[in-house]
Formats: sequence, structure tokens, C-alpha cells
Amino acid sequence: MATGGMDEASNMKVVLKHYVSGSPQETDMHLTAGTIKLKVPKDSNSIILKNLYLSCDPSMIFKMMKLERQLTDPYVLGSPITGYGVAKVLDSAHPGFAKDDLVWGITGWEEYSLISDPKNFFKIQHTDVPLSYYAGILGMPGITANIGFYELCAPKKGDYVFVSAAACGAVGQLVGQFAKLHGCHVVGSAGSPEKVNILKSKFGFDEAFNYKDEPNFDATLKRHCPEGIDIYFDNVGGKMLDAVLLNLRPHARIAVCGMISQYNREQPDGIQNLSSIVSKEARMQGYLATNYYHLYPKYLEMILPLIKESKVVYVEDVDTIFWMETGST
Amino acid sequence: MATGGMDEASNMKVVLKHYVSGSPQETDMHLTAGTIKLKVPKDSNSIILKNLYLSCDPSMIFKMMKLERQLTDPYVLGSPITGYGVAKVLDSAHPGFAKDDLVWGITGWEEYSLISDPKNFFKIQHTDVPLSYYAGILGMPGITANIGFYELCAPKKGDYVFVSAAACGAVGQLVGQFAKLHGCHVVGSAGSPEKVNILKSKFGFDEAFNYKDEPNFDATLKRHCPEGIDIYFDNVGGKMLDAVLLNLRPHARIAVCGMISQYNREQPDGIQNLSSIVSKEARMQGYLATNYYHLYPKYLEMILPLIKESKVVYVEDVDTIFWMETGST
Repeated sequence: MATGGMDEASNMKVVLKHYVSGSPQETDMHLTAGTIKLKVPKDSNSIILKNLYLSCDPSMIFKMMKLERQLTDPYVLGSPITGYGVAKVLDSAHPGFAKDDLVWGITGWEEYSLISDPKNFFKIQHTDVPLSYYAGILGMPGITANIGFYELCAPKKGDYVFVSAAACGAVGQLVGQFAKLHGCHVVGSAGSPEKVNILKSKFGFDEAFNYKDEPNFDATLKRHCPEGIDIYFDNVGGKMLDAVLLNLRPHARIAVCGMISQYNREQPDGIQNLSSIVSKEARMQGYLATNYYHLYPKYLEMILPLIKESKVVYVEDVDTIFWMETGST
Repeated sequence: MATGGMDEASNMKVVLKHYVSGSPQETDMHLTAGTIKLKVPKDSNSIILKNLYLSCDPSMIFKMMKLERQLTDPYVLGSPITGYGVAKVLDSAHPGFAKDDLVWGITGWEEYSLISDPKNFFKIQHTDVPLSYYAGILGMPGITANIGFYELCAPKKGDYVFVSAAACGAVGQLVGQFAKLHGCHVVGSAGSPEKVNILKSKFGFDEAFNYKDEPNFDATLKRHCPEGIDIYFDNVGGKMLDAVLLNLRPHARIAVCGMISQYNREQPDGIQNLSSIVSKEARMQGYLATNYYHLYPKYLEMILPLIKESKVVYVEDVDTIFWMETGST
């Protein structure tokens, strides 16, 4: 595509056409071409990024919808959607970043992004691991798993741990592996026989089941977690949470980082068994990983050796957007 | 009534006729006469009590019902129902108790009770306060209020506190007063204009409303708690909890000691707004006061001076059962 000047480059973007209801479809978005100056504006604090990996996270659906009670600012129609990504700094007016730095943080779904305030970006210091890991195990999802399990669930050796959506993304697979390393008994749910197989064969879960085959989650949990559940790492909410509440052990801990099953519902499922938290003296804690970034250095110190020694494995599902096939700047 | 021997006394009992569904009625119980030996059996650890005050607590309803999932042993039909009470020891084979000791603990709804294992009874040391207080502010309900508010909700000065069923029993009225003493802003709900008036005029709540007049609890809370809610002391569960979830402030704490509104339901209300605990990073903690009795001495140390200096007031609703009018043994 023709560009307007020496420093100007063409810039393909993924743009939301309209706000969605229900599950988003590819047709709700389109690719548009734009241009971008690859030099930072003078007297700014900004950086210019070449985006290398973009993570598709469940919480993005909130920004694709316009709700009566909007939890977060929706995407601006016509502008590129945003999410966590790994990128290379092409130019910087910010004292904390220099040309060629590798970074991760919230960027645009486009080839290049101008970030006017990069204060929430992290500089990538360790490059002896796949760079894409900084959109997953070494990024926000990794911190989510770490904080939820270690800081909020106070795990003890021998605890019975259940993880929903365990193979669906970065978080669940990590929580299960952390729990196994901690000496817990771990059961996971996933949405296909292949994922169930991966949970057991690759991530070392003790038990796993395909929730799509299970008509009665309470009976399923009684079968797979006959001793009950000390720790529930809740990714999904809804009917699975309601069944878990019937199978808690005394002093159970439930960490809730999201309720995927409820995100695209006009009318959420009603949770009927909440009074179990009284009789079981259970604790339920919601959290946002972004408020725990001060613990990121401590997490890196723990997780990097585990990755290098293959004590934790990480499975990614990577697609290539056509513009990314054309090589680097 | 004729008695069988020198040490035998007549003993009126309140007995459950049949298990109830829905709200219990007076006709579900009856008074029966029995006899009791007022001497402890030899080679036992037991004590004989003359019951002085019996507390009618919401959780007793669980024992009056036979449920598919029974949380606690139901009452034995034909035997006296049981609950917290204040009593005088008439005879003791237990080294921890002597004749004429005053005690509180779980006893029978009858004139005299034989307690074969009194390990969960507390000896009453301070008698310069009304004795009946040991069935309320100085007993299990007092500990419930104290633990839920101070230990589990980690209150800070200036926190916005909402208490449901605030005038319904011992617990709510105390939580509200503790919160005011702690420098919090306190709103309470109750079920009649008289109770609403007591909350404000007697217990010093900043705001109070009659929930029976409110068709939309979310709108009610937005009106009475326009800043949102930092601490919710949940006595009721159900629709009120669901509305509170829409009005949480970041890092809100919810202590749940019971869910009265759900106790006599075949089908509990479905809670739809639970995903708020993620976006607000809220914590919900269920608990049973009985597991915090080790903190009772600390609580007494705090509450006794507050009662004597009238910094905390306590309103009781006392009825007299006819046998109690006949004086003491």
C-alpha cells in the first residue's frame, strides 16, 4: 500500500464493526488498512510498537458488548480492538524504553501501535524462552494463575483441587500444574476428549472430564472428587460453580478470576447453592491480576526455572495473521 | 404432677410433632410432660441443668426439616427440641462444673436437662449484667457478630457498611453498633417501621429501610448507599444479596453467617450477580461462630465494658413459658 511519507508505514488493523450480543463471530470484525508514522511525537511519553504476538483473552468479550451495566470501557467502533500482546519498540520518547526493547502489555490488534502512555508495559528481560510466552505463561495469564492459586487459595499439600476450563487457556493448565507441584490432588474439566487427554497426559492432572458429556455436574463431581473439594479455581461460574458449592470440604477456598460461561449471557445463571459457604465456612475471592503486578518479579523468579527444567509445560494455540507472515521490520 | 421418687421432678418439654416444610407453626410442636431424676448418673461426666432462658435462633429451622441434603442432624421427633440457653447447674459429675454454677450452651427446650457431655458449655463468670444476655449479646449471637465484623470483614474507619435483618435478632443490631463504634457509615434493613425506627434512634444506624416496602432492592441500595458498600454483613442471602452484589465498592468484604431468607425454601433464589465479585475483587466468607469459641474470652473483655458504659445497647424480645413463671428450684 502507498504510504504518505518516509516514516509512514501501512498498518493493517482488526476493527470491531458493531457491538455484539452472544458469542462474537469473525463477521463482527473486519480488517482495514491504515497508515502510521513510525516516529514518536515530540514532547510525548509515547512509544511506537511493532506487534509480534497478540493474545485472545476471554475478558475481551466485555469490550465487544455494550451492556446496561458496563464493567469496562467498550471498544471504540472503527478503531483497532486491544488486548495483551508482545511487541518490539521501534521508537521511544519514554525514558523507560529504548529502540529494540521487547515488551508486553495491552496493545492494539494492528501491525504497529502508538502507545501514548506505556506505564503498564513490562520490558522483557529473559529471551531464552519463546517470546510468545509473554502473552501467556509469562504474562497476565501466568500472573492470574499464580496469584489465584498461591496467594488467594492458600494451598496445602494433599488438598483436593478442582479447575474448570482447565485446558481452555493459559490459566487453567498452569493452576493444575502448580497444584500438582504443590502435592495436591487435581481434577480438571475441559470441553473435548482431546483436551481431557492433554490434561491427564501432558499436564499431569489426576482426573479430568469433558463437561459437555456430563448432564449433571453434581453427580460428575461426586464421581471425580469423591472426597470433596478444598480449592476450586473458577474460570467459568454458572452451573459448574453451583455444583462445586454442593461438593465443598470444610474451609474450602474458591478463587474467581472470571466467569466465562456467563460473559455472553443476557440473563446469567442463578446460583442456588451459595448457602453452602456458611455450612462449609468457605471463602470465595474475586480478583483482577492487574492489581497484583507488583508480585510479577517474584513470579518470574519462580516460573522461569520451572519452564527451563520442564517441570511446567505450556501449550499454546498460535494462529498467524497474514501480515505477520511478511517478516519483521 | 406426681413424681416417681424423691429426686424425680416433673419436666415439661417442647417436642416437635413432625418435620416441617416452609415456616414452622406453633401447631408443629406440642408441650408434653415427663419426669427427670435431678441427680447425675454415677460414673458419668454429666450435669443436670435447670433451664432459665432459651434462645430462639433462625438456624433451628434446619433441625425442624428433613431435607434431601441435611446440613445438620434433625431433631428427634418426640424428644425436646434443643438450642442455646442459660441454665443453672443442679448437680454435676463433671470436674469443670459445680452445683449452682450458671452456664450457657446448647440445652433442651424443657424445664430440666441432663447433659451427658457438657464440654461445650461455658461457665458464666460475670453476673453484673442481665443473665439473659448470655443467650444473646454475651453468647453465640454476640460471638457471631464480633467474628464476622472484626475478624472476617477487616473494617476500616470510614467504610460503608450494610447490615441486613439488622433488627431481627441479636446479631444484626450488634454488627451495626460495632460498625458505628469503629467509625463506619452504617445502613440497615428491617421488616417493619418500628424496627427501622429502633435501628436509627436506638442503635445509631445512619440509615435504615423497611425491605417490605421496597420493590427493587438495587434501587433501594443505590438510594441509601449511594457511595456503594465496602462491608456487607449478610444474614439473609437471596434477593438482598443479589442486589448488594450490584453495589459493591472495590475490595468489598461480605461475611455470611446465615441466609435466613432461604432456609425454608424448597428452591432457593438464584443469585445472578455473582460475577461482580471478580470486577470488584470482593471476598465472600461463610463461617460458623462455633468454630471461633477460642476467641470468646477476648470478646468478653471487649464487650462487657461497652455494655456497662452503655456504649452498646441490647434489645431483647423475651417471652415467658408458663413453667418458668413458677420460680426457681
